[in-house]
Amino acid sequence: MSHLTLSTVLSPRLLKLYDCKNTVVVVIDVFRATSTIATALHNGATRIIPVDSVEKCIAIGTQTGGITAGERDGKVIPGLQYGNSPAEYPESFIKGKTLVLTTTNGTKLLHMALNAGADSVITGSFPNLQPVCDYLLKQGKNVLLGCSAWKDKFNLEDTLFAGAVVHQIKSSFHIDCDSSLAAEEMYLKHKDNMLEFVQKLSHWKRLSAFGLEKDLEYCITPNVAPVLPLYKNGDLIRG
Amino acid sequence: MSHLTLSTVLSPRLLKLYDCKNTVVVVIDVFRATSTIATALHNGATRIIPVDSVEKCIAIGTQTGGITAGERDGKVIPGLQYGNSPAEYPESFIKGKTLVLTTTNGTKLLHMALNAGADSVITGSFPNLQPVCDYLLKQGKNVLLGCSAWKDKFNLEDTLFAGAVVHQIKSSFHIDCDSSLAAEEMYLKHKDNMLEFVQKLSHWKRLSAFGLEKDLEYCITPNVAPVLPLYKNGDLIRG
Repeated sequence: MSHLTLSTVLSPRLLKLYDCKNTVVVVIDVFRATSTIATALHNGATRIIPVDSVEKCIAIGTQTGGITAGERDGKVIPGLQYGNSPAEYPESFIKGKTLVLTTTNGTKLLHMALNAGADSVITGSFPNLQPVCDYLLKQGKNVLLGCSAWKDKFNLEDTLFAGAVVHQIKSSFHIDCDSSLAAEEMYLKHKDNMLEFVQKLSHWKRLSAFGLEKDLEYCITPNVAPVLPLYKNGDLIRG
Repeated sequence: MSHLTLSTVLSPRLLKLYDCKNTVVVVIDVFRATSTIATALHNGATRIIPVDSVEKCIAIGTQTGGITAGERDGKVIPGLQYGNSPAEYPESFIKGKTLVLTTTNGTKLLHMALNAGADSVITGSFPNLQPVCDYLLKQGKNVLLGCSAWKDKFNLEDTLFAGAVVHQIKSSFHIDCDSSLAAEEMYLKHKDNMLEFVQKLSHWKRLSAFGLEKDLEYCITPNVAPVLPLYKNGDLIRG
C-alpha cells in the first residue's frame, strides 16, 4: 500500500484540518473559475494571475498590460474588461496574453493553500481532468483535492470532479477519508448522466438564471482543454 | 411548494454559514453519542445532561447524583463511571436515572446550535429515525440537519442519517442545498447494504480497532430506540 495520502476537503473553511506540507493541492472551482483557467491556458494565454480583489485585478492589469476579468452574479464586474466564462477566451483572443482573473471562491482557496505551506498548487476541472491526474501520479507527493465550494458552502460540482480524480488515481494512494469516498461514489453514480444531474445543483440553478447553461455544460465536459495550470511565483502557467 | 427550508450542514465548522433562527437543529453523531442518547432515554433515563468537558461532567454528576459518562478512544475517561456505548444503558440500569454525558463531537455541535439561536435542538441517529422525522414534520419550522463529524472532518455515517431524514420528509420542505441532495443519494445507494458499506468508513475503522463492531452495528439500526430527545434548559428529555 502506498504511503502517500489522498484526501478531499469539501470547503475552504475545512482546509485547516488538513496538513498541506509535502502535498499537492488541487484547487477545484468547476463553475467556472478553474474551467476558465484551463481553457485560457490551453488556448495560449501566457499566464493567468489569480487575484482576490477587484482593486488588485485593476492594479495588476495596469502594471502588466494584462486583460482584467471577473464576474459577480453572471455579469462582468464594473471596472474590469471581461467575465469568468470559458467561452470568452478562444485562441484567437487570448493567445500570447496575460489574464488577470478575480473570482470569489477558487482564488481564495488557492491563496489559503499557499499560506498553509502546500508543496505545489494546481487547478483542475473537468476540461483538464486527464492532465491533473497524470500530474498527480507523477509527483510522489500527498494529494489534497480542494473544493472551492460556494461562499464556503458545500457544492456537488466540485465534489464530482474530486470524485473523478479519486477514481482515476486512488490505487496509487492511501485513502482514509470519507470525503474522498463520498466524492468517488457520487461521481460513479452520475458520470453517465452528468448533464441531467448537475441541473439539480444549487449553483446550476443560480447561474442558469443568467443564461449560462452552455457555459456550465462545457465546464463538466472532460478533457476539452487538456492543460495543467501550475502556480509559480504568482502566476498560473502551463505545467 | 413549502416555504420551510431543509438544509444539511456537514461539519460543525460550517454551522455559521446557516441561519439557525426559527429552525429546528438536529444534532447527529451516529458513532455513538446520539445513538447512546436515544437508547438511554428510550430505556427510561429521566434526563441526559450533555456537557463539553470532563470537569463539568464530574461537577454536574456530583451536584445531581447523576451517572457520569464519556469515552476517548474507546475507553472510559479516567474519573468518569461509564462510557459512550449504547449497550451500557439497558432499562435495568438506567431507568429513572440522570446521565451526565461528555462527548467530543456531538456535544460541541449541540452547544454551537444553541448559541446560534436555534428555535429548538433535538438529537437523532438511526435508532430513533422515525420519531425525529415525525417531530420535524409537525413543527412548521425550518430544519437544519447537523452532522457532528469527527473533529470537524466530514464523516459519512452522520451524512447517511441526514440522508435518511431528507428522504422521509423532503416533500414538506423547500431544499436548495447540495449537502442534502448528496446525503439523500448516499443513503438511498446504501440503505440496503448499510452494514457492509459503513465498514469502509474512517470512523468504523477507528472504533472497530477497539472491538466496538457490535456497538456500531446497533448505531445504524433504524428505530430500535424510538424516542425523541429534546433539549430543554440544559437537559435532553423525552420530547
